[in-house]
Amino acid sequence: MDNSPDVHICEVAPRDGLQNLDVIVPTGAKCELISAIVAAGVSEVDAGSFVPATVVPQFGDVGAVVAHALTHKSTTIGAVVPNVKGAERALAAGVNSMYFVISASETHNRANVRRTIEEQLEAFRVVRARINAQKAPERPHLVGAVATAFGCSMEGDVSEAAVCRLVQGFAEAGADEIGLADTVGYGTPTQVKRIVRAVRNETGPKMMLRLHLHDTLGAGLANVVAGLEADVRRFDAAVSGLGGCPFAPGARGNIVTEDLVFMLERMGLSTGIDLDRLMATREILARHVEQKHLTGHLHEAGIPRVLRRVA
Amino acid sequence: MDNSPDVHICEVAPRDGLQNLDVIVPTGAKCELISAIVAAGVSEVDAGSFVPATVVPQFGDVGAVVAHALTHKSTTIGAVVPNVKGAERALAAGVNSMYFVISASETHNRANVRRTIEEQLEAFRVVRARINAQKAPERPHLVGAVATAFGCSMEGDVSEAAVCRLVQGFAEAGADEIGLADTVGYGTPTQVKRIVRAVRNETGPKMMLRLHLHDTLGAGLANVVAGLEADVRRFDAAVSGLGGCPFAPGARGNIVTEDLVFMLERMGLSTGIDLDRLMATREILARHVEQKHLTGHLHEAGIPRVLRRVA
Repeated sequence: MDNSPDVHICEVAPRDGLQNLDVIVPTGAKCELISAIVAAGVSEVDAGSFVPATVVPQFGDVGAVVAHALTHKSTTIGAVVPNVKGAERALAAGVNSMYFVISASETHNRANVRRTIEEQLEAFRVVRARINAQKAPERPHLVGAVATAFGCSMEGDVSEAAVCRLVQGFAEAGADEIGLADTVGYGTPTQVKRIVRAVRNETGPKMMLRLHLHDTLGAGLANVVAGLEADVRRFDAAVSGLGGCPFAPGARGNIVTEDLVFMLERMGLSTGIDLDRLMATREILARHVEQKHLTGHLHEAGIPRVLRRVA
Repeated sequence: MDNSPDVHICEVAPRDGLQNLDVIVPTGAKCELISAIVAAGVSEVDAGSFVPATVVPQFGDVGAVVAHALTHKSTTIGAVVPNVKGAERALAAGVNSMYFVISASETHNRANVRRTIEEQLEAFRVVRARINAQKAPERPHLVGAVATAFGCSMEGDVSEAAVCRLVQGFAEAGADEIGLADTVGYGTPTQVKRIVRAVRNETGPKMMLRLHLHDTLGAGLANVVAGLEADVRRFDAAVSGLGGCPFAPGARGNIVTEDLVFMLERMGLSTGIDLDRLMATREILARHVEQKHLTGHLHEAGIPRVLRRVA
C-alpha cells in the first residue's frame, strides 16, 4: 500500500525565502525553521545554497544549516548548487538532493551566474560525473532546474523552444528530474499547461517534473491548478510566501505553502502536512524577518472554524 | 462582426466593495469612482444596493449614485435588491440590471435578510412580476444571485443539492441569469467546476451564468480559471480587491479586477478594459478608504515593463 501523499511539496523558504533578505538570519533560527518545517510533515526541504558567501552572505553558514537539516533522517534535504565547486561542497556535506539552476533566458542566466547557458550545461555534466563517481547509496538526486521558464524580468517572454532546448540539455546530461521555475512570477495557467506539455513531449512521460512558482501577479495558485491538470504532482513553495528574485524588482515571493496545502487538501489531494504546525513556522520567521515580507491569505483570514474538519 | 470581449467583467467595488467599510464614502467620490471605472472600459457596474439606509448607511445615497451612473449610457448599470421594496426603488431609478440575492445556506440567508429562502423566492417572484409589468424596453435584466454557493461562514460546507434547489427556484421564477457567489471565499477550483456543471445541468445550457468570487483563502484567480474551464465567461470583481462580508469574519475582499484583467489578457482572453486606467481608480479609493483595505498583486509589483506590450 502506497502511503505517499497525492502531492509532494518541497519547502524552499530556508533557501529561496531567505536569499534576498537584507538581514542575515542567525544559523540557530534557520535550523529551528527547518526543524519546524520537518515536524509539520514536509518531506523535502531546500535548506540553502552552496554559493560563495561573498556572493550571497546569507548562505555563509550553509554547511552548518545543512548538517543540522540532515539530522532529520526521514526528510529529503536538498540545496541549490550554482556551479561545480558548489556541487562538490554539497556532495561533501551529504545532501540528498541537488538543484542545479540554469535560466532559459540567456540574459537572466548571465546576470545570475555570469556564464552562458552552454557553459552552465557543461558544468552540469561535470556535476553529473562527480555524483556518478560516488557509491550508489550516497548519490544525491539531481534536479535540472530551468529558471525563468515562464518569463524573464529582463527579456520578457521566454520561448517554449528555449525552455525545451535547456530541458533537452539537462535530460541528455542525466538529470534525475526537471524543475520548471517561474522565477519572476509572470506565468499564466494556459502557459503553464502549454510549457509542461511541451517539456513532457521532450523528455518522455517517465521524467520526474516539478514546478517552482512565484506569486508576483496573483496567479500563483491558479498556476498550481494548471500544473495539476497537466499531471504535475511536485511543487516548491515557501512558508509565509517568503522569497523573491534579485533580478525581478517588485516581485513577490514564492507561492505560500500554507495556502497551497489548504487549497490542495480542500480539493481532496493529500499533502501529508499538518497545517497548524506549518502555520506555526511564522512565529520563527517573525522574530527575524520584517512583517512586510510575510504574506499568506490563510494567515490573514485565519483557518475558518467551520472548515476545520476538512483542513 | 462581434466586438464583445471574450470575458465580461462586472465591477462591484461601488457596491460590494463599499458595503462593509466603517467609513461612509462621499457621494461625489462614489460617482467619481464609477466614472473612472466606466472610462476604463468596464461594461457593467454594480453601483449600489437598494437596502434601507437604516440597515446599511453606506447606501443612503444610492439613488443619487445610480442616477449619476446611468448618465454613462454605454454601460450596464446594476444594483443589488434585497426585497420587493428595494426592487421597486431600483425600477423607479431606472437601473439596467438587478441582482436579487438569496443565500443557499438557510442560516446565512436569515442573518443577511431575516427571511427564509422560500420567503425570499416568493419575493423574487413578485419582483419578476413587477418587472414584467414594465414596457419591454424598460425592463431591467434580472439576476438571481445565489450567495454562499461554495461555502458558508456559519454552516461550513453548502451542499450541491441546496445550490441546485435555489437555482431551480430562481429559474422557474424567470431569472434572466444565475449568479453563483462565493460570498465568503471558501471555494476551490474542483468545487467551482463541479457546482457550475451541476447548475448548468439544472438550468440547461442557455441560461446565462456569472461567478462572483472572493479571495479569502488565496484561490480566487484559480477559481476563475476553473470557471473558465467550465465555460463561464462572466465574472464579478472589485478594483483594489475591496469588499468582504459582515457575516464572514476575517474574509478578504472580492477578486481584484486589475489582477483578473491582467491574467486574462495574458491568457489571450480579451476583456475590453484599459488596465492603466483601471489601475488609476486606486487613487480615488485611497483618498477615502484605509490602505489596509486596498490589495492587489499588480499594484504591489507594478505592471512589469517587459510585459507591457501584451498587457
